[in-house]
Amino acid sequence: MNRVAITGYGNTKFSREEIPIESLMLDATKSLFDQNPDLSQKDIDTVLVSTNDNSKYLAAVLSELSGIEPRAAHTVESLCNSGTNSIVSAYSYIASGLGDVALVVGAERRDSPGQILEWDNSRGEYKHPIFWGSIFTKSHKRKFNTTEEDLAIVSAKNHNNAQYNPYAYSNKVYSVEELMTSKILTDDLRVSDCSRPCSGSSAVLLTSEKTASKISETPIWIKGIGQKTLSAGFTKNQDYSSMTSTIEASKSAFEMAKMKPKDVDVAEVHDAFTVCEIMAVEDIGLVEKGQGAKFLKTLYDTGDRKINPRGGLIGSGHPLGATGIAQVIETTQQLQGNAEKRQIENANIGLVHNMSAAATSSTVLLLQS
Amino acid sequence: MNRVAITGYGNTKFSREEIPIESLMLDATKSLFDQNPDLSQKDIDTVLVSTNDNSKYLAAVLSELSGIEPRAAHTVESLCNSGTNSIVSAYSYIASGLGDVALVVGAERRDSPGQILEWDNSRGEYKHPIFWGSIFTKSHKRKFNTTEEDLAIVSAKNHNNAQYNPYAYSNKVYSVEELMTSKILTDDLRVSDCSRPCSGSSAVLLTSEKTASKISETPIWIKGIGQKTLSAGFTKNQDYSSMTSTIEASKSAFEMAKMKPKDVDVAEVHDAFTVCEIMAVEDIGLVEKGQGAKFLKTLYDTGDRKINPRGGLIGSGHPLGATGIAQVIETTQQLQGNAEKRQIENANIGLVHNMSAAATSSTVLLLQS
Repeated sequence: MNRVAITGYGNTKFSREEIPIESLMLDATKSLFDQNPDLSQKDIDTVLVSTNDNSKYLAAVLSELSGIEPRAAHTVESLCNSGTNSIVSAYSYIASGLGDVALVVGAERRDSPGQILEWDNSRGEYKHPIFWGSIFTKSHKRKFNTTEEDLAIVSAKNHNNAQYNPYAYSNKVYSVEELMTSKILTDDLRVSDCSRPCSGSSAVLLTSEKTASKISETPIWIKGIGQKTLSAGFTKNQDYSSMTSTIEASKSAFEMAKMKPKDVDVAEVHDAFTVCEIMAVEDIGLVEKGQGAKFLKTLYDTGDRKINPRGGLIGSGHPLGATGIAQVIETTQQLQGNAEKRQIENANIGLVHNMSAAATSSTVLLLQS
Repeated sequence: MNRVAITGYGNTKFSREEIPIESLMLDATKSLFDQNPDLSQKDIDTVLVSTNDNSKYLAAVLSELSGIEPRAAHTVESLCNSGTNSIVSAYSYIASGLGDVALVVGAERRDSPGQILEWDNSRGEYKHPIFWGSIFTKSHKRKFNTTEEDLAIVSAKNHNNAQYNPYAYSNKVYSVEELMTSKILTDDLRVSDCSRPCSGSSAVLLTSEKTASKISETPIWIKGIGQKTLSAGFTKNQDYSSMTSTIEASKSAFEMAKMKPKDVDVAEVHDAFTVCEIMAVEDIGLVEKGQGAKFLKTLYDTGDRKINPRGGLIGSGHPLGATGIAQVIETTQQLQGNAEKRQIENANIGLVHNMSAAATSSTVLLLQS
């Protein structure tokens, strides 16, 4: 099996702007080419697009707009973890020998149809994610005495980290006190506990081992992949204070990489809501169950950017199909030592956690320099 | 690299009926399980859905409805060749070692949004595929003296073949003379030259070599894969009497399989319009350029079902995301000797040709028993 590396990336600013999906895709692709001046369109044999947009044939549209004539080209959709699903697909094309260089572009518009969980009638009228976010929060509070302050700390930390992310939706920082007076949306959630839908696009380049060194001096290797889908409907999940699909995907990823949670130097986790970050660090195994809030408070207090250095979904914004790609880019930059003001010292192993629809499915990736 | 086999399939009747997309997917999956009584939901680690439907998270929805808890699960979209794109993705998951058993389900509703080429403004108001079908037909007529009768023969042959396909949209047969009086739609196309949009679903099971023999006594191996995307817009294609992406995809597939066109015993080709079948047999290399119509007339005259034994898209109907899957199923059945009244003698090597949007992209697969 061929080893597969990340050898390039392109970002766009995440924003409220109304931008056509084609322009979003093209902006990230142009950014990628601009940062890899030796890369030619002819080098690319696989083009995958990650999005929830209803437009069809977008991988062919992007290919034509970018002057690429690939072999494989299609759209991948799996709601909020479309991004990592498309990266795993590109990985498998290359690992199996079908492809050599894959461009993977995630793009979403602020009005994406993926934001409402239309299919799950068991939710009754509560199809907006905020309802499962509230149930997760209430459950975690009950079981582990998680407080409103614990939640606000996650949000404050991620906004703090996002101030140094030039592509974040906002670079504004907030104190914990300020966030604890943020607008109340449900019994358990304030505006500041929620990631924001936005427009944005991110692109990565994956290559075979044979080609990696021709494209990048600092290729970052995909060492572990874990994926798990438990259901589509939220109510199939029995313990609302854990993300079972994340537990299982993490286990698979660590097994494949022959690594352990303690090996992880930096992690991008899917903080759709503040409680998700607390649950993620627990369920991945970075800390014991119930210790997530305490751990994240220590990071906040000491200015440690180990978790969500780019600001997470809460700080950076959440353009669904682009999120998983942006997480992989941040981790790549950290492992390359290219993360500028966000740089963590001695980052050697990075983890990406990306999930969909109340964690009914999760992807976990392990990257290494 | 692991070898990958097709070890199971499930069909539904293609029809005009209004059926929810979830029911369509589930019907094909149930058919697959019914035909593989030893297969357990636990065996399946990858679930891919091929569709142009706007519903989200369908691979997770199908998984939950079917009692499967896979690792990888997502939707693949590339218009009319979504089906073979999803099969190639499943192949690469297994070949790379990420997966072992993949369920791939193609499903489409008759009112699929993939039928209109919304993105291609270069078509002016001519966004319906019939306009590129007309241009292809006019070009082929001019260059190779293709006649209206040649086109009607393709349609008559495919309807003839479809009479023995229990899942075809219609089992009605027509004479060439009847078809030549069919309703005129454009200067060059009659209703009988066009494939019909419909509702339908098809499912296949792909497995690793290690597992194939546990599931099927007659696994069919995927030996060659060729894919090519040239553009999204039709007007980038310069020679309207050939399908350039098909020529390139075929070449790749034959190279990978170490086979030649003369080795092919049976082929499913993408007859979106009658002229596409003539062009396909030429562009794949089954006959010399310009000899397609003559070749297909001989098949019709002798009752030879070598090309499109299930009736093609014209005879069977064209539920976009399901078509590529149905083509692979037919080829699998032929190579297994399970094609009943449609069975071709001594079928050992089969080819599948599936394309999108005026052949701006094509997939070609080579299967062997």
